[in-house]
Amino acid sequence: MKIIGIEHIGIATESIEKIAPFWKKVLKLNHIHRETIEKMGVITDIYDTGRGKVELLEQTGQESSIAKFLKKKGPGIHHICLEVENIEEAISELKQADIQLINDVPLKGAEENRVVFIHPKSTGGVLVELVQKPK
Amino acid sequence: MKIIGIEHIGIATESIEKIAPFWKKVLKLNHIHRETIEKMGVITDIYDTGRGKVELLEQTGQESSIAKFLKKKGPGIHHICLEVENIEEAISELKQADIQLINDVPLKGAEENRVVFIHPKSTGGVLVELVQKPK
Repeated sequence: MKIIGIEHIGIATESIEKIAPFWKKVLKLNHIHRETIEKMGVITDIYDTGRGKVELLEQTGQESSIAKFLKKKGPGIHHICLEVENIEEAISELKQADIQLINDVPLKGAEENRVVFIHPKSTGGVLVELVQKPK
Repeated sequence: MKIIGIEHIGIATESIEKIAPFWKKVLKLNHIHRETIEKMGVITDIYDTGRGKVELLEQTGQESSIAKFLKKKGPGIHHICLEVENIEEAISELKQADIQLINDVPLKGAEENRVVFIHPKSTGGVLVELVQKPK
């Protein structure tokens, strides 16, 4: 598969409102997007660093993976997202390599992206998201 | 301060040897550097994604911050590193904003970089490293 680069870092938080000032006012990152993804049970608040984004993630309900993560590990970096050229090709190669996927059909993520999540068991403890952007 | 972008993501692991194949052989990231930083008690194994690096971090002894992190949170993403134009300017602005720093004089990191670490208490649980690269 062809990886293009780090697309974003996802940060799990109990309150975007509380932590956003650090990213926005202290680091002075550009705020570019805010979106509620009902299917995933998360609100995302997205900042551009100039090379890769920072995505603050807050749960909308108790059922989301963010809630589970906060319970287990506390607030902090939740995942890394890498941009790929072709998500179907990536999924096929990952399956061939016996890598454990959380979904093996691309999901719709923020900003109309198509995404797949790789299970931390296969990466050394890191939740890795791969994304193909709409053309 | 002027942030240029995500420089790398640091991943804490008990064994670089065990997890490197995923980043190197499955994702096919370019291996660019390996270094032991005695002062910080870590071995770093660095891969390029095309836009930002992935740094695998293994402790050299029991005293390192990696050992503490593994005990508390388990293996996974340890920190995010953002590149800044001027690290002294960044430190001065962070102090003015009452942000808690782990070191307030730049340390020497991997690849002759000068770095400062921001305490997770001030960021919403994320260990943030800022780096100014040598010119």
